[in-house]
Amino acid sequence: MHGMGNNELRVGVVGLGPVGLEILRALRRKPWARIAAAVDIAPDKQGRDAGELAGLDRLGVRVTSALTTECDVVAHSTVSSLGQATAQLIELAGRGCSIVSTCEELAFPLDDEGEQRLREAATAHGVTILGTGINPGFLLDTLPLTVSVVCQEVNSIVARRVVDAGQRREPLQRKVGAGLALDEWRRLQAEGRIRHVGLPESLRLLANGLGWTDVEFGEETIEPVVAQESQRTAYLEVRKGQAAGVRQVIAATRGGQQVIRLELEMYVGAKSPADTIAIDGIPAVNLEIVGGVHGDRATAAVVANMMPRVHRAPAGLVTMADVPVGFSG
Amino acid sequence: MHGMGNNELRVGVVGLGPVGLEILRALRRKPWARIAAAVDIAPDKQGRDAGELAGLDRLGVRVTSALTTECDVVAHSTVSSLGQATAQLIELAGRGCSIVSTCEELAFPLDDEGEQRLREAATAHGVTILGTGINPGFLLDTLPLTVSVVCQEVNSIVARRVVDAGQRREPLQRKVGAGLALDEWRRLQAEGRIRHVGLPESLRLLANGLGWTDVEFGEETIEPVVAQESQRTAYLEVRKGQAAGVRQVIAATRGGQQVIRLELEMYVGAKSPADTIAIDGIPAVNLEIVGGVHGDRATAAVVANMMPRVHRAPAGLVTMADVPVGFSG
Repeated sequence: MHGMGNNELRVGVVGLGPVGLEILRALRRKPWARIAAAVDIAPDKQGRDAGELAGLDRLGVRVTSALTTECDVVAHSTVSSLGQATAQLIELAGRGCSIVSTCEELAFPLDDEGEQRLREAATAHGVTILGTGINPGFLLDTLPLTVSVVCQEVNSIVARRVVDAGQRREPLQRKVGAGLALDEWRRLQAEGRIRHVGLPESLRLLANGLGWTDVEFGEETIEPVVAQESQRTAYLEVRKGQAAGVRQVIAATRGGQQVIRLELEMYVGAKSPADTIAIDGIPAVNLEIVGGVHGDRATAAVVANMMPRVHRAPAGLVTMADVPVGFSG
Repeated sequence: MHGMGNNELRVGVVGLGPVGLEILRALRRKPWARIAAAVDIAPDKQGRDAGELAGLDRLGVRVTSALTTECDVVAHSTVSSLGQATAQLIELAGRGCSIVSTCEELAFPLDDEGEQRLREAATAHGVTILGTGINPGFLLDTLPLTVSVVCQEVNSIVARRVVDAGQRREPLQRKVGAGLALDEWRRLQAEGRIRHVGLPESLRLLANGLGWTDVEFGEETIEPVVAQESQRTAYLEVRKGQAAGVRQVIAATRGGQQVIRLELEMYVGAKSPADTIAIDGIPAVNLEIVGGVHGDRATAAVVANMMPRVHRAPAGLVTMADVPVGFSG
């Protein structure tokens, strides 16, 4: 057999927040990526050179308010909510672009009507749409699914991600409520303003990938991690006794037995960041990514690497369980 | 989205050595597998019930000398050499079966003519052919490729598998030369009789999956691991100073820099069996499967789990980099 490289692709980046700009930087490292468009709704970004906005050299691509250049595939990172993203995705599909989106709720759409609209749009325009990222999209779903191929039988899977939020971007530190008094944390959490989106999607993506149709999905629990000592990050301070971040857990059962458990801890000062997967099966598997995976870098990497793969895939709405996964150099 | 289970498949097992029998046991655990055929060339196995031969309950399927029953997909495990397997694979394809084979040299065929014949046979008969297993097939190729999706850039990948051969089946202990005097080990190795087959295939499968077309592939080195103390396994004795097993290494370079290095140590008494992947990249990734993966159990698992996935894949000759990978429950 002979190696095949990736052909040049005209790529666009839609949404130039911290994640979108990191995707732009990731794409600049890819020999196959010709950056053809950069889009953001913020007036102060429009008209600027996309490369300069990302802290790189000039790219000769100006930020526009909407996609006007032909692209083979676009990276989309604007919102977590599928309800808010759907119209944007359908418009991009209508322009003939395949899409790799960081919209967390797209990783495994739970809204049947929205899913149906996206599926129809993808099929009608002959493009492929994928929701992905590091979490949801890889560490708590695709990776345990992939590793489970070595098991004849799987009794249960526990996947756990522990992130030191203190090393991450400011929006993430705010999103987990780091530095809030506990009653304030609980108030904001009850309002839905403190939460990392994606665990229900990861759970269903994994169960579906395993071929388990008879599992029951539990509700997600979200609790504060209380700071054991005071700490200061680049953006905020967390005092002892305040919330340092979140601990979110979700599980699926089968005949009353827990068969999947996903745990996510993101808090300032996490002592042993790591990603671990424990499969009780035949054989058993205990996997650890020592020190964990850097989420911001890796989210952009997953998006960029999946772009040629999504462009090659059959048209339709797909998940990470449907497409071969890997680096695209 | 809604979960989809695996539909029932008529499966066959061709080759009923230790690996084939373990595949049969793995398939018995699969609700989607209806075992329709069991084939072996050994006259003393023919006519026996396949389940009983595998140490299970009666299956009502007698071992035959050739495949005579219709199957959707067969597991093939007879030989490591692609040259020897090709005619068998073409015959199975001609019967309309997709194939998942443990033939190590099929994981990434290096013989262009054999590859072409298989590709044509698969296409002509509308079936899919995959070579896989744990090594080659997963730990030193598919897994590093999959994990590398989290990297924007990959400078180098080192994947290492350390196996305690003392815990494995007898043919494996013999194949690595455990218990031989060093000069005898070297003589047999020079004759090609001591070697785990598959590192060159893993190296090319990984490089190709990464999209690296400009790498140079080095030659594999094979050295004995010398026993530091005397040991006895269930099958043989290794004295201090004798060969305990093999250490095989292969690497690929790019512009003189080593970019992939695969290391395989299989020897009696290995103290810290583990599978590790170290990616120097953006971000870096250090993954470990603590205690390693049980090779015999896992090889059968990979084959069984890939059978529905290969049956769903487009017709042709494929590699593990071309098909979504995971457990099939």
